[in-house]
Amino acid sequence: MTRRPTISQVAELAGVSKATVSKAFNNRGGVSEQTRIRVLGVAAGLGWRPSARAVALTSGGSGAVGFVINRPPTLLSSDPYFAELLSGIERTLAEHGYWLLMQIAEHSTPAQERDAYVSLAQTQRIDGVFLAESRIMDQRFDIVAELDLPAVIVSRPWARTDIPWEGAAHPGGGVADAVAHLAGLGHRRLAYVAGPPDRSHVQFRTQAFLEAVAENGLSVVGISRTDFSAEEGHRATGDLLGQREAPTAILYDSDPMAIAGCRAAMARGMRVPEDLSVIGHDDIHLSRWTTPALTTIRQDVQGLGERCAARLLELLGVLVAPGVALPEPELVIRESTGPAR
Amino acid sequence: MTRRPTISQVAELAGVSKATVSKAFNNRGGVSEQTRIRVLGVAAGLGWRPSARAVALTSGGSGAVGFVINRPPTLLSSDPYFAELLSGIERTLAEHGYWLLMQIAEHSTPAQERDAYVSLAQTQRIDGVFLAESRIMDQRFDIVAELDLPAVIVSRPWARTDIPWEGAAHPGGGVADAVAHLAGLGHRRLAYVAGPPDRSHVQFRTQAFLEAVAENGLSVVGISRTDFSAEEGHRATGDLLGQREAPTAILYDSDPMAIAGCRAAMARGMRVPEDLSVIGHDDIHLSRWTTPALTTIRQDVQGLGERCAARLLELLGVLVAPGVALPEPELVIRESTGPAR
Repeated sequence: MTRRPTISQVAELAGVSKATVSKAFNNRGGVSEQTRIRVLGVAAGLGWRPSARAVALTSGGSGAVGFVINRPPTLLSSDPYFAELLSGIERTLAEHGYWLLMQIAEHSTPAQERDAYVSLAQTQRIDGVFLAESRIMDQRFDIVAELDLPAVIVSRPWARTDIPWEGAAHPGGGVADAVAHLAGLGHRRLAYVAGPPDRSHVQFRTQAFLEAVAENGLSVVGISRTDFSAEEGHRATGDLLGQREAPTAILYDSDPMAIAGCRAAMARGMRVPEDLSVIGHDDIHLSRWTTPALTTIRQDVQGLGERCAARLLELLGVLVAPGVALPEPELVIRESTGPAR
Repeated sequence: MTRRPTISQVAELAGVSKATVSKAFNNRGGVSEQTRIRVLGVAAGLGWRPSARAVALTSGGSGAVGFVINRPPTLLSSDPYFAELLSGIERTLAEHGYWLLMQIAEHSTPAQERDAYVSLAQTQRIDGVFLAESRIMDQRFDIVAELDLPAVIVSRPWARTDIPWEGAAHPGGGVADAVAHLAGLGHRRLAYVAGPPDRSHVQFRTQAFLEAVAENGLSVVGISRTDFSAEEGHRATGDLLGQREAPTAILYDSDPMAIAGCRAAMARGMRVPEDLSVIGHDDIHLSRWTTPALTTIRQDVQGLGERCAARLLELLGVLVAPGVALPEPELVIRESTGPAR
């Protein structure tokens, strides 16, 4: 077993002080070119390099950014949105040699959530953070300002803030297209299986849904609140279809809910789309492989992750090639929507 | 905007040297109890705490472990296995206040993969690593030994190694049950849509498949090699069903491949399970919500992540409550398997 080489060994072998080794690596002057080359040569020979902490102290960067996801850890597997977002974030970070320091834990109190950020900032593990799933009243905006922590909000926030954000300009855009698509197919009675009402994106979409329904002269026969999970999508669909005035088409705030919704309809002997039209949200990877393949509102979630990571690295002074603009949400018509009975 | 407090400010306000502040926090002696209390009080007042790096140097732990996933970042969203694994890892790490430092990047050469671990170890960002998807010949086993880096292998490795691993004792166990289930339903011609042949778990399963087929006196009419993706599962299924001697049942190495396989069969006018029986692997979250719901070999992937994290923390000297034993892979019979035509 080899031991990690130390700065003292480098200093001793190069015949200089530890401070000189440090200066040689930081290229800060005060060291002759000859000495610098000797130090770098000895370090390379030993396989020594400055620790992340030391680099952070001198260059102002630790090479890592943080992501605290305030949800139960099971979320990552039940809602593929987060996996897609992480894919995009990781792609851009890896390109620039950055690491992602992550914690997924449900904070039961605002104080617990606050502690996670304070701990991240004060232990100086990371240079900046992502803020995902922004809320209508979001204490995190104040926390990062107070901690002087560079941050990027994932998706457009509901309230005005000085913190930069990346995402579609019109987060409810695809919802209007979805409602117009259903109106064109002759549907009159719609229902909406929505996510938690305290999320900014759920508010944007709910607003867009109600406006589009009014514009097209349709009726809303139900709005269900869920946690985005397939389980709750299944339950909500059963409830809506059991109503006296049942919908002929249902919009869902996530694809797993829409897939489970199809199953709930079929369990009642209904066919999709002949008896019920179903529209999901996000266009997760599996949506095109189920039967029926899902009509859904596509978001470029991986692209969103890439843009957010690029924006955060820019805030940290990293040179990032300009990315292409993020596409607005877009309705993808597949097999789960059809003419109203 | 508040600035992060520094150790110098703490030292100045407490009227001691920076070294004394450090000693007071490390509880290493050489500081009177009175001084220690004064230093801790000043630090608390300023909101200062030792940096992760400093804690790592003195306590031997950085509070973070590393996970390098050598796959394209899109993998995280296309194969829910990794999201489930991360869920479990994060759950146990968060319980013990540990962070996960992650990088997902496809290393095109062995040297690139090596560099990722060397960089992780030498910059002392982390205390240990997870090694997922172990390979038949796995250079990472040598790398972590050479770097003296505590490591836990995720799932049973193919070759003998001194590195601890967590996972099912019989990684191919469920495959034998699946083949017996199909034999009992009267199937005689089976095919297997497998993952990359250099993975340990793919080898265990392929071996189990071939043994079980021989034991039950069945024929193998095809083994396809894929990257686990739905796309390749779809393509492989089309190829197998287009053969002169087509299978009446297909086993898949992942659930997304099995779901896409059902779609490929239906696209040829076949019904599942009436014309083709389909069995997946892993039991991802969506497998019970598709139609037909998937018969699949359940692995407790989240539990596997939890066990691996607990084992790694134990290696680092963290006191971890003993977990329950990981269940062996188990066939879950749903709707995608039925009697042979």
